[in-house]
Amino acid sequence: MPTRPARPRCRDLGIQIGLLEPGPLNAITDVPGVRVGHTTLVSGSGPLAPGQGPVRTGVTAILPHAGDLFLEKVVAAIDTINGFGEVTNIPQVDELGVLEGPILLTNTLNVALVADAAIEWSLMRHPAMGVTTWGLSPVVAECSDAYLNDIRGRHVRREHVFAAIDGAGDGPVAEGAVGAGTGMTCFGFKGGIGTASRRASAESGGYLVGVLVLTNFGERRQLRINGVPVGWELRDWEGEPPQEEAETQNGSSFIAVVATDAPLSSRQLGRIARRVAFGLARTGSFGGTTSGDFAIAFSTANRRQHFPASLTFTQEQLEDIPAINGLFQATVEATEEAILNSLFKAETVVGRDNHVRYALPLDRVIAIMRRYGYPLEVG
Amino acid sequence: MPTRPARPRCRDLGIQIGLLEPGPLNAITDVPGVRVGHTTLVSGSGPLAPGQGPVRTGVTAILPHAGDLFLEKVVAAIDTINGFGEVTNIPQVDELGVLEGPILLTNTLNVALVADAAIEWSLMRHPAMGVTTWGLSPVVAECSDAYLNDIRGRHVRREHVFAAIDGAGDGPVAEGAVGAGTGMTCFGFKGGIGTASRRASAESGGYLVGVLVLTNFGERRQLRINGVPVGWELRDWEGEPPQEEAETQNGSSFIAVVATDAPLSSRQLGRIARRVAFGLARTGSFGGTTSGDFAIAFSTANRRQHFPASLTFTQEQLEDIPAINGLFQATVEATEEAILNSLFKAETVVGRDNHVRYALPLDRVIAIMRRYGYPLEVG
Amino acid sequence: MPTRPARPRCRDLGIQIGLLEPGPLNAITDVPGVRVGHTTLVSGSGPLAPGQGPVRTGVTAILPHAGDLFLEKVVAAIDTINGFGEVTNIPQVDELGVLEGPILLTNTLNVALVADAAIEWSLMRHPAMGVTTWGLSPVVAECSDAYLNDIRGRHVRREHVFAAIDGAGDGPVAEGAVGAGTGMTCFGFKGGIGTASRRASAESGGYLVGVLVLTNFGERRQLRINGVPVGWELRDWEGEPPQEEAETQNGSSFIAVVATDAPLSSRQLGRIARRVAFGLARTGSFGGTTSGDFAIAFSTANRRQHFPASLTFTQEQLEDIPAINGLFQATVEATEEAILNSLFKAETVVGRDNHVRYALPLDRVIAIMRRYGYPLEVG
Amino acid sequence: MPTRPARPRCRDLGIQIGLLEPGPLNAITDVPGVRVGHTTLVSGSGPLAPGQGPVRTGVTAILPHAGDLFLEKVVAAIDTINGFGEVTNIPQVDELGVLEGPILLTNTLNVALVADAAIEWSLMRHPAMGVTTWGLSPVVAECSDAYLNDIRGRHVRREHVFAAIDGAGDGPVAEGAVGAGTGMTCFGFKGGIGTASRRASAESGGYLVGVLVLTNFGERRQLRINGVPVGWELRDWEGEPPQEEAETQNGSSFIAVVATDAPLSSRQLGRIARRVAFGLARTGSFGGTTSGDFAIAFSTANRRQHFPASLTFTQEQLEDIPAINGLFQATVEATEEAILNSLFKAETVVGRDNHVRYALPLDRVIAIMRRYGYPLEVG
Repeated sequence: MPTRPARPRCRDLGIQIGLLEPGPLNAITDVPGVRVGHTTLVSGSGPLAPGQGPVRTGVTAILPHAGDLFLEKVVAAIDTINGFGEVTNIPQVDELGVLEGPILLTNTLNVALVADAAIEWSLMRHPAMGVTTWGLSPVVAECSDAYLNDIRGRHVRREHVFAAIDGAGDGPVAEGAVGAGTGMTCFGFKGGIGTASRRASAESGGYLVGVLVLTNFGERRQLRINGVPVGWELRDWEGEPPQEEAETQNGSSFIAVVATDAPLSSRQLGRIARRVAFGLARTGSFGGTTSGDFAIAFSTANRRQHFPASLTFTQEQLEDIPAINGLFQATVEATEEAILNSLFKAETVVGRDNHVRYALPLDRVIAIMRRYGYPLEVG
Repeated sequence: MPTRPARPRCRDLGIQIGLLEPGPLNAITDVPGVRVGHTTLVSGSGPLAPGQGPVRTGVTAILPHAGDLFLEKVVAAIDTINGFGEVTNIPQVDELGVLEGPILLTNTLNVALVADAAIEWSLMRHPAMGVTTWGLSPVVAECSDAYLNDIRGRHVRREHVFAAIDGAGDGPVAEGAVGAGTGMTCFGFKGGIGTASRRASAESGGYLVGVLVLTNFGERRQLRINGVPVGWELRDWEGEPPQEEAETQNGSSFIAVVATDAPLSSRQLGRIARRVAFGLARTGSFGGTTSGDFAIAFSTANRRQHFPASLTFTQEQLEDIPAINGLFQATVEATEEAILNSLFKAETVVGRDNHVRYALPLDRVIAIMRRYGYPLEVG
Repeated sequence: MPTRPARPRCRDLGIQIGLLEPGPLNAITDVPGVRVGHTTLVSGSGPLAPGQGPVRTGVTAILPHAGDLFLEKVVAAIDTINGFGEVTNIPQVDELGVLEGPILLTNTLNVALVADAAIEWSLMRHPAMGVTTWGLSPVVAECSDAYLNDIRGRHVRREHVFAAIDGAGDGPVAEGAVGAGTGMTCFGFKGGIGTASRRASAESGGYLVGVLVLTNFGERRQLRINGVPVGWELRDWEGEPPQEEAETQNGSSFIAVVATDAPLSSRQLGRIARRVAFGLARTGSFGGTTSGDFAIAFSTANRRQHFPASLTFTQEQLEDIPAINGLFQATVEATEEAILNSLFKAETVVGRDNHVRYALPLDRVIAIMRRYGYPLEVG
Repeated sequence: MPTRPARPRCRDLGIQIGLLEPGPLNAITDVPGVRVGHTTLVSGSGPLAPGQGPVRTGVTAILPHAGDLFLEKVVAAIDTINGFGEVTNIPQVDELGVLEGPILLTNTLNVALVADAAIEWSLMRHPAMGVTTWGLSPVVAECSDAYLNDIRGRHVRREHVFAAIDGAGDGPVAEGAVGAGTGMTCFGFKGGIGTASRRASAESGGYLVGVLVLTNFGERRQLRINGVPVGWELRDWEGEPPQEEAETQNGSSFIAVVATDAPLSSRQLGRIARRVAFGLARTGSFGGTTSGDFAIAFSTANRRQHFPASLTFTQEQLEDIPAINGLFQATVEATEEAILNSLFKAETVVGRDNHVRYALPLDRVIAIMRRYGYPLEVG
């Protein structure tokens, strides 16, 4: 199920989301130091043999910086948009305002094994953990790929997690049906991983905001692309997908990771994280009851030492009024575009029991967008 | 500053927001028993004389049912979308899950006087309050009308609050620059009061959801009408309004009141309230830092007695999965449309220091919407 | 109803709460810059004439520093221990992490009028408020003195609030039946205002923590003094007070204000505020359902400018691990002792309808404490 | 390391905590249907060989009822007292207000493996999970036993979890150094598992409240037994334990599980859970910064069907005012006594690197209690 390079990103088609400029890569990796790694697991086809396959799943790792993430923690916050889902170790992030390891995304039933692998990965690097100091409390988030994947098999194993973390890099980020996104569904089409970035205005310090999303939510007819009711226009295309039922009983979900180089406190990162829902809403979601929707935000500028040298530390912090507004706008725009990129980049996937999630039909999208007044210069 | 009857609501122009059907009035008063009252205060013109005028303000009362609101409380919840603002008595609503009086909307500096008036109104009706039982903890929310109004004057007095409460009625709701909306600004245009409603699908029980909003937020260029970037297209119309500066230093805000006849618990009403941000986002808001954005949700179906007859009570409750989804969708759609109605219905207002907030130019809006593919059958 | 100077504080009797040392005054005013002012209103006697009296109420103001509190805001947080009560403007403190005016304590039905007076006080000092910048969002907390006071009369007026604020001073703090504490009841005895302080250990930076409480909660038989079940031993003394019934229908409550000179973030002040419940519990409270229990914490070391000079600012912050532990311990100990001081210092008060709240009988307390192994060197 | 049967529970020595009566077993299993199971892992001695031992750990399972916990969920809530720790799936409990499986307690680094085992256990019982309906989101809580145990080894494996769940029973509950409590430390002494129960007064419906705790927190000198400063009196006994340092760098923690047969909503169970901190505080805790303190509360009376038969359901609910007060008091008292039972019942344990945690010296405790006026009729 290789990704054909031809599928464009949203902006490649001339669809410009929002008013701010993206960073050079229009990706979370525009924020200096941030790295992303995927392990994609695809094997088997045909009827579901629980525990064996078919496998359409994976794991994605986001590393806030290139150093030791445990010894040098980044300031962070998590917002629960709709809590029917799991992000591990939210209480510790709330209490102390830091992340102390990679952020990992995977499928719902694999959360625990992936968290254990993250602990193992961390123990291997820190002999003192559990002996003279505490161990990693990993942050692992999930969406359910049960419609396409043998999710009971929990096929993401320790080595896959290690590979995603150790293989994480800066530069362009693979999108669509990769990593944790391999088996995900968004607005009834194939979804998965997407990313985008924005540079805040000078009045907001010109900081960068990068967003990476894992998309697995929504009914087809609700989809909006830059405000255009594309989903409604496609409501009869290839028949209605059996999305609602699958969602209702297997759960859906949406995870966003927001990175910024702005010097923010954990309180302010909470404010940033709460803007993710605004970007999500612009694509047509109404926050479905079974969708575990979460936003994880961190600042690469503000860090905390595991072994502090003194009783206090000093840190720069952005003003809330009005400077932070540019970061709010950047977060909303980058979230909206990242979600669209997850759809634009994902190829059709046939999964267990020959369940199909079609790639968003871009020719149709282009035609619809034109009809709604967007003179796209492609296709 | 009379409201000319000619200004249409959003739907009158053929703009249909969302996929669900409105109730008969397309108003919060579609929910049986809910009543709305406004007191509108307009006097003076020209330069600001702090404490004297010009006055462009008011108060709006929403009554959950026609009975004694204290003795028969409605189950309720409040969501803080962005907390730079005040809604009084949130802790009590959180703790006990009920409202025990009318919901009142007014200007920022009048919150305290309006709350005191609500207490007075309640004391007059309940001689036992403060003697043998506790007094009302009023829920009063606010937006700042400082750009148009002599807000320092706190011109909303006790009698105006009594008039809004006692004059509240069912039936159609006055919208635009009325009541608490008299001096408000939305996306740089004249905003104020708006309302809309939806009937959930049969799978969700066919319950009604009504929303009333007080709108006072947003930059002009962000405004979206049914997804169309109307604000961007109007960015040069009549010059850029001095909105951002005013917002930043005087605050903006957004209040939504959601009523439903669905039998919901306070936990579920919290879920409903958290969907208001989705409707807000669809109109173009990114949750500005100085905007105090709140959603107050209540169920007319589930009530609690101030003097319960026994140790326990029994109440019907909707299932969360998947039935509540229809109410989520209804909340998002009604919120979006209510915001638009606040803009469509509001006339131009000239306020203190001859500050002007122009009515949304509907002819331009119609032309833009047509250009973006919406064949509006008017104008 | 003059306070006879003879009633000792808890520590004057040799009762030492906890292990840390108090500051010089053992009061919230040990934290440099913090000032406290009371206005005490006592008039009339005999039967209740609602709106006229008898009056047993007041207002207490806590000022975080001696400068302009609006222009130079202190970092702050509020914890809701039990939300059946009101502290105004919690959302803004949560969102922005600062206080921008004095903290005011009063009776339940007076909250709104006191908040309006605080707005007025602030408007008088800032002509730009409501014109070119936003106005004060006052933090006002309350307990119900309905058992002793004509609470319906809302006898605390504007001038009383101004007097409490303008008369606030450093130095020793009047305790017991003064200010907002005039009509309050604690564990069935006369309660009111109490204060205490602690100096954290050197490992925690040696910072000061001061606590001021307004006490109006608890059943007599639950009272513990330094762990000794004094309330149980006094369960038959002078007959059982009609506390439970009054509490249940008129509400009780507990407010704590915690000041520190430690450089804390709002997240950390939230952690401090959440320790107040630990001190409260040690005195015997189980967090009664009608008791609105809140803790408001601020740091005098960390401030924010209303008109910041630049886009960012820099601030010192204490480490969470383990340095903050000393501040936690200090908060718990000072809270416990402040509650006891409110009881030890309060004289008997006869209020409306000749309702009586007896002063804690200190001779009995001493005798009981001795019987439980505390060789108090007094009485 | 067998538990000698001779160690008494707190109440066996005549120490009566609080004013309410315990249930027949004075255990969480007094709540009909609640079952508890332990797997205790003890092997090896001497120097730590990371990954191999010595092993002093285990897992404890609490089952809300004897039926299928997934198909028939119990209404529930979780309170985070101090968030430096992990309880998995808090967001889902917050959002939907139910538990859908056993509650599991274990050591910090084993959380993920234990959660995966719970998923596996559930998958084995529900072939539809992950195929046509969603899978279990297990609630697993932890404390760190790193001082005594080879915690890096994550010695609690799948079969141990299955054994704890499948072996769970009603009847008396083993306490002290068993199950998840095997390697825990409380106030510098050997802690672990404790339990207690209370019957609320008739005015509160006479419902039962049972509490089970896992204790791993506190400095020795802070310990209070029924208010008596036993820890301070024992501060020099057998030398100061190296607790503070171990806590600070390895973490401590406290978990309480509260069961009741009272018909409560999830909102009310949140209120119950927030009372656990009051019981915790009475034993001397000030909520140490590294202590992950959580309370999980559920009602066996109110349940929710995984596959509901209709759109709505009807449920009894207790009044908040004043009926719930008796349950608050019961929760506080049972928590305090359960913590003490964890200390009274635990034998001395020698762990990795010959680290020792002494059993609380009961003869000394008795002597001290007598000196403080409690005429204990034993020893």
